[in-house]
Amino acid sequence: MDAKVKDLRKKAVVLLSGGLDSTVTLARTHEEDYELYPLSIDYGQRHDKELESAQKIANWYEVKEHKILKIDISQVGGSALTDMKIKIPEKRDENKIGSDVPITYVPARNTILLSLALGYAEVIEAQAIFIGANALDYSGYPDCRPEYFEAFQEVAELGTKTGIEGKPVVIKYPLINLTKAEIVKEGERLNVPFHLTWSCYKGGDLACGKCDSCILRLKGFKEAGIEDPMEYED
Amino acid sequence: MDAKVKDLRKKAVVLLSGGLDSTVTLARTHEEDYELYPLSIDYGQRHDKELESAQKIANWYEVKEHKILKIDISQVGGSALTDMKIKIPEKRDENKIGSDVPITYVPARNTILLSLALGYAEVIEAQAIFIGANALDYSGYPDCRPEYFEAFQEVAELGTKTGIEGKPVVIKYPLINLTKAEIVKEGERLNVPFHLTWSCYKGGDLACGKCDSCILRLKGFKEAGIEDPMEYED
Repeated sequence: MDAKVKDLRKKAVVLLSGGLDSTVTLARTHEEDYELYPLSIDYGQRHDKELESAQKIANWYEVKEHKILKIDISQVGGSALTDMKIKIPEKRDENKIGSDVPITYVPARNTILLSLALGYAEVIEAQAIFIGANALDYSGYPDCRPEYFEAFQEVAELGTKTGIEGKPVVIKYPLINLTKAEIVKEGERLNVPFHLTWSCYKGGDLACGKCDSCILRLKGFKEAGIEDPMEYED
Repeated sequence: MDAKVKDLRKKAVVLLSGGLDSTVTLARTHEEDYELYPLSIDYGQRHDKELESAQKIANWYEVKEHKILKIDISQVGGSALTDMKIKIPEKRDENKIGSDVPITYVPARNTILLSLALGYAEVIEAQAIFIGANALDYSGYPDCRPEYFEAFQEVAELGTKTGIEGKPVVIKYPLINLTKAEIVKEGERLNVPFHLTWSCYKGGDLACGKCDSCILRLKGFKEAGIEDPMEYED
């Protein structure tokens, strides 16, 4: 591909945590022939497992550039995912997950992630920002609903240079209405390297199999009838 | 004041850069009897002068808590304020300032600042977020216009736990329609410690007097007929 043709490729910033959903989203963006600019946020997670996964996945897809932005929102607190003093819940009833705002909710998480992606998208002149948010399995998270993303789209249109010039970046959330099983099937179709992803809220050598995230993942693979290559404790 | 009465005070997160506008905004929030939680963002500015000012101002107002959040958006680039490779413009015609999107515009700056304030506001259960944005002197910045803040308000209502519970934080931007001279007069009325503020885009011992920010400040004080205690070069 010569330089001129290459310049015509669409660019996408893809929020990549290293988990299942963001990896399937990256695979989808890749399929749609965007030039890939994954963005991972080191926000003071309890462990580095997710970020290590994100790096392996970025390498797997031979992305244009993988940016890891460090921001210590654990200083702000308020979530079991960033505050070591709050215990991560275990073995919750899978039907209860998503029916409340859980303690693993990070305040304004998606707004913070999208705002950083918006700044990055503006600098590299990306056409789209992809986020692997999902409204079904995370209905307890207010910032995982379509109406929330529509409101953020408005912010992107009004609050950026590209937006007021009539070329706003488009916020895309292709997994929003899929069940976890459907996400797994979509990942299978796209040949996603499931073995490189990390979903567990804890950072052990093996996934715990007991936190909300492990429970949803296990249920998803089971319902999809696909084997999860992740190794679990016990 | 006993503990019970104290708990009834409204809380406000105030974005405090250490400049003139954010300091006048803090003074206004103080006048409105909010409990003050200023938030300063160490976003990889060229210099620490602003943050030093922010700390002095927070001390002056004996705030409840001053949070400084570090996030290196200079990695994202695209602005003369965070990228040492881009030269800060000097001696621009004061009438031209604000008529374009200048190179000192930080991509998605206010969206990033507000999203961090939103997360913090949610954790401390604040009723309001104050930002000293101004549409007149910074009409070149897309994220300093009322319609932009209205869009962000929608994000705050839809994307947070407090928002979906019907107690959304309110985004306030009291300086939005003031000229710089009016902001200076408002600061005078509120006894703002002008001598502690820092406006210059550069980080010298004295303010440069030549960058857009110094030019606007000097013009504001002159038009207000108030003496600027800032010391300038030359």
